[in-house]
Amino acid sequence: MRFFSDNAAPAHPKVLEAIAASNRLDTAYDGDEWSKRLDGAFSDLFGTEVRAFWVTTGTAANCLALAALCPPYRAILCHQDAHIEVDEAGAPGFFTGGAKLVLLDGPGAKLTLHVVAAACEAIRNDVHQVQPAAISITNATEYGLVYRASEVARIGEFAKERGLALHMDGARLANALATTGESLADTTWRAGVDALSFGFVKNGGLTAEALILFRTELADEIAVRRKRAGHLLSKGRMMAAQILAMLEDDLWLENARAANAAAKALAKAAGPRLVYPVEANELFLKLTDAEAARLRDRGFDFYEWGPGQIRLVTSWDSRAEDVERLATAIAAL
Amino acid sequence: MRFFSDNAAPAHPKVLEAIAASNRLDTAYDGDEWSKRLDGAFSDLFGTEVRAFWVTTGTAANCLALAALCPPYRAILCHQDAHIEVDEAGAPGFFTGGAKLVLLDGPGAKLTLHVVAAACEAIRNDVHQVQPAAISITNATEYGLVYRASEVARIGEFAKERGLALHMDGARLANALATTGESLADTTWRAGVDALSFGFVKNGGLTAEALILFRTELADEIAVRRKRAGHLLSKGRMMAAQILAMLEDDLWLENARAANAAAKALAKAAGPRLVYPVEANELFLKLTDAEAARLRDRGFDFYEWGPGQIRLVTSWDSRAEDVERLATAIAAL
Amino acid sequence: MRFFSDNAAPAHPKVLEAIAASNRLDTAYDGDEWSKRLDGAFSDLFGTEVRAFWVTTGTAANCLALAALCPPYRAILCHQDAHIEVDEAGAPGFFTGGAKLVLLDGPGAKLTLHVVAAACEAIRNDVHQVQPAAISITNATEYGLVYRASEVARIGEFAKERGLALHMDGARLANALATTGESLADTTWRAGVDALSFGFVKNGGLTAEALILFRTELADEIAVRRKRAGHLLSKGRMMAAQILAMLEDDLWLENARAANAAAKALAKAAGPRLVYPVEANELFLKLTDAEAARLRDRGFDFYEWGPGQIRLVTSWDSRAEDVERLATAIAAL
Amino acid sequence: MRFFSDNAAPAHPKVLEAIAASNRLDTAYDGDEWSKRLDGAFSDLFGTEVRAFWVTTGTAANCLALAALCPPYRAILCHQDAHIEVDEAGAPGFFTGGAKLVLLDGPGAKLTLHVVAAACEAIRNDVHQVQPAAISITNATEYGLVYRASEVARIGEFAKERGLALHMDGARLANALATTGESLADTTWRAGVDALSFGFVKNGGLTAEALILFRTELADEIAVRRKRAGHLLSKGRMMAAQILAMLEDDLWLENARAANAAAKALAKAAGPRLVYPVEANELFLKLTDAEAARLRDRGFDFYEWGPGQIRLVTSWDSRAEDVERLATAIAAL
Repeated sequence: MRFFSDNAAPAHPKVLEAIAASNRLDTAYDGDEWSKRLDGAFSDLFGTEVRAFWVTTGTAANCLALAALCPPYRAILCHQDAHIEVDEAGAPGFFTGGAKLVLLDGPGAKLTLHVVAAACEAIRNDVHQVQPAAISITNATEYGLVYRASEVARIGEFAKERGLALHMDGARLANALATTGESLADTTWRAGVDALSFGFVKNGGLTAEALILFRTELADEIAVRRKRAGHLLSKGRMMAAQILAMLEDDLWLENARAANAAAKALAKAAGPRLVYPVEANELFLKLTDAEAARLRDRGFDFYEWGPGQIRLVTSWDSRAEDVERLATAIAAL
Repeated sequence: MRFFSDNAAPAHPKVLEAIAASNRLDTAYDGDEWSKRLDGAFSDLFGTEVRAFWVTTGTAANCLALAALCPPYRAILCHQDAHIEVDEAGAPGFFTGGAKLVLLDGPGAKLTLHVVAAACEAIRNDVHQVQPAAISITNATEYGLVYRASEVARIGEFAKERGLALHMDGARLANALATTGESLADTTWRAGVDALSFGFVKNGGLTAEALILFRTELADEIAVRRKRAGHLLSKGRMMAAQILAMLEDDLWLENARAANAAAKALAKAAGPRLVYPVEANELFLKLTDAEAARLRDRGFDFYEWGPGQIRLVTSWDSRAEDVERLATAIAAL
Repeated sequence: MRFFSDNAAPAHPKVLEAIAASNRLDTAYDGDEWSKRLDGAFSDLFGTEVRAFWVTTGTAANCLALAALCPPYRAILCHQDAHIEVDEAGAPGFFTGGAKLVLLDGPGAKLTLHVVAAACEAIRNDVHQVQPAAISITNATEYGLVYRASEVARIGEFAKERGLALHMDGARLANALATTGESLADTTWRAGVDALSFGFVKNGGLTAEALILFRTELADEIAVRRKRAGHLLSKGRMMAAQILAMLEDDLWLENARAANAAAKALAKAAGPRLVYPVEANELFLKLTDAEAARLRDRGFDFYEWGPGQIRLVTSWDSRAEDVERLATAIAAL
Repeated sequence: MRFFSDNAAPAHPKVLEAIAASNRLDTAYDGDEWSKRLDGAFSDLFGTEVRAFWVTTGTAANCLALAALCPPYRAILCHQDAHIEVDEAGAPGFFTGGAKLVLLDGPGAKLTLHVVAAACEAIRNDVHQVQPAAISITNATEYGLVYRASEVARIGEFAKERGLALHMDGARLANALATTGESLADTTWRAGVDALSFGFVKNGGLTAEALILFRTELADEIAVRRKRAGHLLSKGRMMAAQILAMLEDDLWLENARAANAAAKALAKAAGPRLVYPVEANELFLKLTDAEAARLRDRGFDFYEWGPGQIRLVTSWDSRAEDVERLATAIAAL
C-alpha cells in the first residue's frame, strides 16, 4: 500500500480513453483539433481570456513561465522549500539563462506578504545587486498548506505595485481548491497571478500539465520557448486530449476531492503527530524510527522526511480500505 | 489522404496497449520496472553496453546529446539543412549554452568526409575562432538519403583523429536500416558514433524517443540534464513501455519497412520527377503549381517544398490503396 | 615596420595624459565626474540624446548591445565575415544566451538591403525556425569598405518595417567617416541605427570603447548587463577620461584621417593588386608567396589572408617614412 | 577624507609608469612581451607552476574561474555575504550558464569546514537536487576577517575528498597575508585552492586583476572563456605591465601593509564599537545615526552598513594625518 507520491499513481481510465480516441492522423505538433480547443476550454473555465499550453512536466510549465516573466539578469522570489528551488535540478537557472532565486522563509513553505516585502526591501537598488522581477508561490504548498484567494491577492497587489510578475506553481492547485471551495478565477488572475502551472499529472493525468497565461501577450514567446526546449511533441493531440478529459465534468476537481478526503481520514488518526495542518493531500507526521518501521512492516510505503518525520501522500485512487487500514495502524502506534 | 508527415501518423496499436498495461502504481520518474529494462534491452540490440534514456522529442534527444558532447564555447559541425539547424527553434543554442553550429553543404543534406575535413581546416586554431567539438549527421537525412555504415565510419574515424565527438540524429534511422540492411551496431558505435537519437515517434510510437549513449560515462550528466530541462516525466513507465513495445519482435524495423515500401511504390511512379533518389520514406518531386493543385484536387495532402517542388512522406500505416491511388495520379500528370 | 594591425599600435599621448590626470580618488565604478560627462559629450556629438557606456573591448560593446536587442530565442542577421561571427569566440552566443547568427553573403563583408531582405524572406514564420530580431553591420567593414549614410538608411528602413533592431559595429567608424565626410548623425541614428559600438582602441585609445544607445530606454538593462559580464571597472574614471580625450578637438577624426591617408598612399602603389577598393585603413593585396617573402625580408610585417593574399593595416601613428618605403617596395615587386 | 572604498583610491605611481612604458607597438591581445612574462612571474611567486591571466575586474576573475570549475547543472557553495552572491549582479549565473549558488552562514562572511560539510550533507544525492561542484571562499572576507593557511587547508582537504573544486576570491588577499605573515603558497595551492582571483586594483593597481590557475590544465578553457566574455583586451600589454609593477619588490605586499596599518590605528580608537576583529583593511563600527552624522560633519566619508553600523575602508594611500584625525574623532564620540 503505497503512500509515497501522487506522482506515481496510475492515470484515470478516462484519460487513457481520451488518448486512445485521439490516436488518429491529424496535424502534427499543436495544430490538431484537440490542441486548438485548449484556449477556449480554459478561457471558459477561468472566466477570462487565457492562452493555454500543454507540457509534459511541472518543471517545464514552471520554468517556461519564469523564463518569460524574468530576464536572465534579474531574480525570482520564492520559498526556500519551493519545488523550483529544491526539486527541479536547477531548471529555473537553465530556462531563464541564469536568473537568481531569492529564497524566503515561512512555516509550511508558504509565503506571506510580510516576508516578500521585507525581502524586496533588503535588496539595494543598484547594478551590483540582482533586482527582483517575479514572485513564485506554490498552491497547495510543498507541505500541503493552501493559499486562500485573499492571501494570494495580498501578494498579487504588492507585486503589481512593485512591477513584479506573479507565478503560481499549481501542481496541486486542484487539491487546494477542493479545500477552500474558492473559484479558480478568484485564486488566480483576479488575485494578480500572471502565469499558472496547472497540474494534472499528480491528479489522474498521464503526461499532460497545462501552462496558463493570463497575460496573453506572452503566448508567442512561450510557444517559441516550448519548442526550443524540446517540449513541442509531434503528436500533441494526445496531450490536449488528456487535459480535455480532465476538464470534462470537473473530473480534476472530483479526483482532488477524493485524494483530500483520504488525507483528512489519515489526519484524524494522526492527531497531534501532524507537523502541519492537513489542507490538501499531503501529511507530515512526527514518528520515531521504530514507529515508522512498524508501519512499513504492515505493508505501508512512504518517504522519510528528515529525522523523526515521514510524509504521506494520498491520491485520486487511494483505496478506502487501504486508507482505513493505515489510519488504524497510525492510531494504534 | 495525407502524405505530409510521418510525425502526424497515429501510434501503432501495440504501443497504446503497452501504455495501458503500464498504467499502474509504480515508482515515479525512471525508477519503475519498464524504465529499468531499457539499458539492457538496448545493450542487447546494439551488441554492446549502452545507456538509454527516454525523452519525448527528437529535439530533446538531439540537444541533450549535443550539450554533453560540446561545451558552450565550442562548435558542432552539421549540414545546413540539418533538423537541428532548421527545425528546432535554436534548441542547440539553448541546451548547450550558446555553442555554435557550423553549417556545411552537400546534396541531399548528406555530409561527406571531404566536406567535414575542409570545414575543420578552415577554422584558425586560436581563441578568436570557435573551435569544433562535435559533428552531427542525420540518418536518414532530411532529404531521405541514407548513410551506409562505411560512410559513417569514414566520418567517425576522422572525428576520432581530431578529438571530435560524433552524434547521429536517427529520427528515421529505422527507415535507413530497412534500406541498407546493415546492422545497428555497424551503422552506429562501430562506425564511431558516440550518441544516437533513436527515433520511434515518426515510426509508430506515441511520445517516446530514445537517447542512446555509447560513451556510457556520459550517462550521469545526461540524467541530470534531462531533469533540468523538464524532460523527466513522473510517469516514465509509459515512456519506457512504448519503446519496449517497439523493440519487441522488431516492430520498429517492420514499421519502417512498410513505410519504405510505400515510398518505393511512389518513387516508381514519380520517375524523373524525383529530386533525390528515394532511400527511405521521403520523396521530393518536381511539380508545377498546376500539377500540385491537380493532386490536391484529388484529395492528396502534402507540403510544398520551395518553388516547383513538393515533399511526400509515407508512414508505417500508409494504406496500400491510398499509395496506389497517389502513384496512379502522379503517373497521370 | 609593422602593418599587421591597428589593434597593436600604441595609445595616443593625449590618452595617456588623460588617464594620469584622472588618477585621483573619486567615486568607484561609473559614479565619477568623467563617466558622468559621457552621456552629455556623446549627445552633443550625435546631435540627439544618447546614453553612452565605456567598455574595454569591441566584443563587449557588440555583444552587450546584441543581448539587449535580441532575445535568446531569436536571430541576428550579419555578414558571414562579420567580426561577431568570425573573431569573437562565439561571444554573441554567450551574451545573448544562445541567439543565432544568420550568416549572409556579399563582397567585402558588406550587406545590402537586397541580401538582408532575401534572408528574411527565406525564414518560415513558425515556431520551428528561429525568427530574426536584429541586423548587425560593420562600418567600415572587415575588408575596409564603408557604408554611405544612404546605404545604412536603406537597411535601417527595412529593419524598422520588419520590427528588427539595427546594430552597427563601428570599430573603425572613425575611418569610415573620415572617408565619406558624412556626419555621425546621418550615418547612425538618422539612418535607423539603434545601438552603436563606437571604436576608439584601434584609433589611438588604450582600453576604452564606447557603446552608444540611441534607444535610450535600453540603458538600464545595459548597465546591469555590463556589470553582470564583469565589465564594470572600479576605476572607471580612467575609461571615461580616455574617451573624452579622444573626443576633444576631434582627435578621433584626426587620427582616422592619418591612418586613411597612409592607406591611400599604399593603395596607390598596390594598384591592380588590390582585392577591394581602399576606403578606410585596411588593404588586401594579391601577392605570391615569393613576393610576400620579399616584403618580409625588407622588414615589413603583415598577416597572410588566405592563399595568395595579404592584409595591411595602417594606424594613426603610421610613420610617413615607413609608409613610403612600403609603397616603394610594393611598387617594385 | 574618504574612507568608503579601496576601490576608489588612485593607482600607485609605479603602475602608471609601467603602463606608459608599455605603450609601444607590440603584438595585440596577450602575445606581447609583458603578458608572456606573467606565467613565469607568478610561478616564481607561488613556488609552483601556475598559469596566470590578466582580467579587468574581480567579477571577471571570479566568474571565469567558477565557470571552469562548475558545470551549468551543478552548484557552488559560498557564504551568503560573499561578493559573488551579493555584489556581482548575478555574474556567476551568467558565466556558468545557470549554476546555482548554495548560500552558507557564519560570522564575518567566513566559512568553516563544519558549515561546508553540513551543507553538503543536506543535499540529497539524486537528479532532482543540484549537486555541488565547487566551494568559493573570500580571503580576506567581505567583513575583513582572514583565513589562516590551516583554515583553508581544512576546507581544501574536505573539497578534495568530496571531489569538489576550491576557488579563492582574493580581492584583498594581499591584506590577508600582510596580517597572517603566512606564505602565498601555504594559503593557496598547498591548502587545496584550485583557482585564485588575485586582486590588485583595490591595492594600488589601475585596471588589472590576475586569475591564477593551479590546475594548469584549465588554462586553454579559461583563455577561450576570457575572449568569449569580451575580456581579451587588444592592448593587453598595459594589463600585464601593471601586474608586473605590482609584483616588483613586493609592492603588492607593501601597499597592503600600509592599508592594514591605517586600519589598525582606527581599530584601536574604535575599541568596543567594532563588530568584527580588524584583520585586514576594513572596519565595521556600531554607531548611532547622530554619531555617524557627526563624523560626516567633520569631513569623513564612508558607507552606512545597515542600521546602526558603518563601514570604513583604508587603502594603500591612506594619509597618516587623515587616519589620525579620524581616529581622534572616533575616540571623541
